[in-house]
Amino acid sequence: MTLEVTHVRKLTRITVDDIDSLARGAAILGTGGGGDPYVGGLLARKAIEEYGPVELVSVEDLADDAFIVPIAAIGAPTVSVEKLDTVENLSLTIKKLAATLNRVATHTACLEIGGSNSMLPIVAAAQLGIPLIDGDLIGRAFPEIQMGMAPLYGIQASPMALADEKGNSLVIEAIDSFWGERFARQASIEMGCNAFNSTYAMTGAQARESFVAGSMSFAITIGDAVANAQHNNLNPCDVLAETLRGRIVHLGKVTDLQRQTTGGFAKGQATIEGMGADAGSILSLHFQNEHLLATKDGTVVTTTPDLIIVVDAESAEPITTENLRYGQRVCVLTGPSDPRWHTTEGLELAGPGYFGYGVPSHRWDGTPEEHTESIERYRV
Amino acid sequence: MTLEVTHVRKLTRITVDDIDSLARGAAILGTGGGGDPYVGGLLARKAIEEYGPVELVSVEDLADDAFIVPIAAIGAPTVSVEKLDTVENLSLTIKKLAATLNRVATHTACLEIGGSNSMLPIVAAAQLGIPLIDGDLIGRAFPEIQMGMAPLYGIQASPMALADEKGNSLVIEAIDSFWGERFARQASIEMGCNAFNSTYAMTGAQARESFVAGSMSFAITIGDAVANAQHNNLNPCDVLAETLRGRIVHLGKVTDLQRQTTGGFAKGQATIEGMGADAGSILSLHFQNEHLLATKDGTVVTTTPDLIIVVDAESAEPITTENLRYGQRVCVLTGPSDPRWHTTEGLELAGPGYFGYGVPSHRWDGTPEEHTESIERYRV
Repeated sequence: MTLEVTHVRKLTRITVDDIDSLARGAAILGTGGGGDPYVGGLLARKAIEEYGPVELVSVEDLADDAFIVPIAAIGAPTVSVEKLDTVENLSLTIKKLAATLNRVATHTACLEIGGSNSMLPIVAAAQLGIPLIDGDLIGRAFPEIQMGMAPLYGIQASPMALADEKGNSLVIEAIDSFWGERFARQASIEMGCNAFNSTYAMTGAQARESFVAGSMSFAITIGDAVANAQHNNLNPCDVLAETLRGRIVHLGKVTDLQRQTTGGFAKGQATIEGMGADAGSILSLHFQNEHLLATKDGTVVTTTPDLIIVVDAESAEPITTENLRYGQRVCVLTGPSDPRWHTTEGLELAGPGYFGYGVPSHRWDGTPEEHTESIERYRV
Repeated sequence: MTLEVTHVRKLTRITVDDIDSLARGAAILGTGGGGDPYVGGLLARKAIEEYGPVELVSVEDLADDAFIVPIAAIGAPTVSVEKLDTVENLSLTIKKLAATLNRVATHTACLEIGGSNSMLPIVAAAQLGIPLIDGDLIGRAFPEIQMGMAPLYGIQASPMALADEKGNSLVIEAIDSFWGERFARQASIEMGCNAFNSTYAMTGAQARESFVAGSMSFAITIGDAVANAQHNNLNPCDVLAETLRGRIVHLGKVTDLQRQTTGGFAKGQATIEGMGADAGSILSLHFQNEHLLATKDGTVVTTTPDLIIVVDAESAEPITTENLRYGQRVCVLTGPSDPRWHTTEGLELAGPGYFGYGVPSHRWDGTPEEHTESIERYRV
């Protein structure tokens, strides 16, 4: 599968110079989740400086029998900014998971593009000396492990390896991805709400089907476009909307914020009072690690699985869920997610109904989803 | 180490005929915990009928390089009576743990003598065709995994294998037994408050030091003695006190019972109004899976780590924590635990202070522990 984006500059490796753009772009695609990219960026920079640039491989170029072991952090992003991970522990889950399956990882990959979770795989790839896949398993960030493309193709989040910075590790063999999520979530809570996680190990043939291809390059393209706009006196929010092929839904000031770290997640909602053309309008944002639902003056504007993105109103620099603050002037944008999230099976996994919001799914352009198709349409 | 009991009939194998006595004796040593022996007894009987009697090996007879992988259930006993385990899943954790360590189990063993936890290893031994150790790692039952003899000798509860009846399994590698307990407890809660658990895998040389030797034979001796008293018109409670080398502390009726399943444990307290010689006296029992503290008319009578046992006043049949009921006429007994539990290190792991009871440890004879020695005294 490839994203419906044709204006992406394809990269073949990631150097220190790409880190800022990738961090920015991935935090934008992370829709508030995926962890603060700043800490992850520091680690990625350090790893590339130590081990050299990381090779980036297209999903299409993978051998059928390549063996991909992805990596991510699991936990509440509010906590990850307070616990600095060390480079040393980072590739442990990849090695553990591969060993459980009596294989050696030929590639690593992002479980989700988004914030710090786009950075950790760079550290692991550099450390292990293996290439990184230009792609991820969601095309955005989502809060729970079963919310990936892989389960839509019958690949479950089991076995799964977890590790923390103290030296504890677990290998979970669950009967399906939902059970994998349950065990991993509880363990990550015991691990201090922040742990490393490898799962959805798969062959190159499986990856060609179930990855969101090109999302690392896409994130860097987004990050570059915003930087470019900042330096060339263009409106960065307008440029971002165009690059995302989405739209700006609201410009305003954060006037109310409720956020708690509960059940291993950062959950809450924010109220954004309109400014400029949006003066007099109120936007409400609901999040669970990621932004999942936006209503404007009581009307649904856009929902998960499409992207809901909060950036600084001036610079279009992304603001993650844990960095939202009272008084911030923000621009809220929305854009399309991978089309497979709009299938019947995709919406069941990650639509607004799953999260308990009693509203039908609305696409980024504001239209409610009335007819959905099966994932079968997207089988290769 | 051997128990300070010299009147035990040493067995060399366990047959169907031993199950009733073992179940009764182990439930008595289980001090309210270890799970209802009835369900475990059914499984053990079925396993012996299918695979033949189980060989029972003395700790002293173990080869230095024997490899022992113990097994137990972990969870709230209140739940285990509602979830019938199947024989098929039972030896899975032994195989998983041995495989993690690149070994094959030559023997299995009880993690704790007590209720159903004395029965599950029989099922596993029968199924795997390996001998069972005549001993266990506590000499009674305790609610948390780190409360075993092994940690007193530097052997930690890691790695650990967990499995449930649905087919989920985990291998935990924790930095110490306390962390092992934390991960296993949360996973067992997700598994429905009842899971199988293998840990403290060790060599024969290590087992000779850290096992409570002879506790399977001791449990059968206790069970036989009570049955004998019942059939020969002796007072079964008196005979039980004598066999335990302990004493009866109270005879009465359960008039109040508070019990909740919380944090993966059955916690609570019971009030027992005295009858006969104890008329007018009130005994209060505090438990967390096991009975941990008894006070009589406000004075501490006996505490963990010594044994506090509740049996039917007429028959001396044991009553586990989850089977305590309003109106039951019961006899409360107390007796000595393995002397190593009375060391400084043992009391730190499992004395009343650990459980949050603000009282000093009292031995079964009612005396407070004033001077304690280090475990070093018991090193072989």
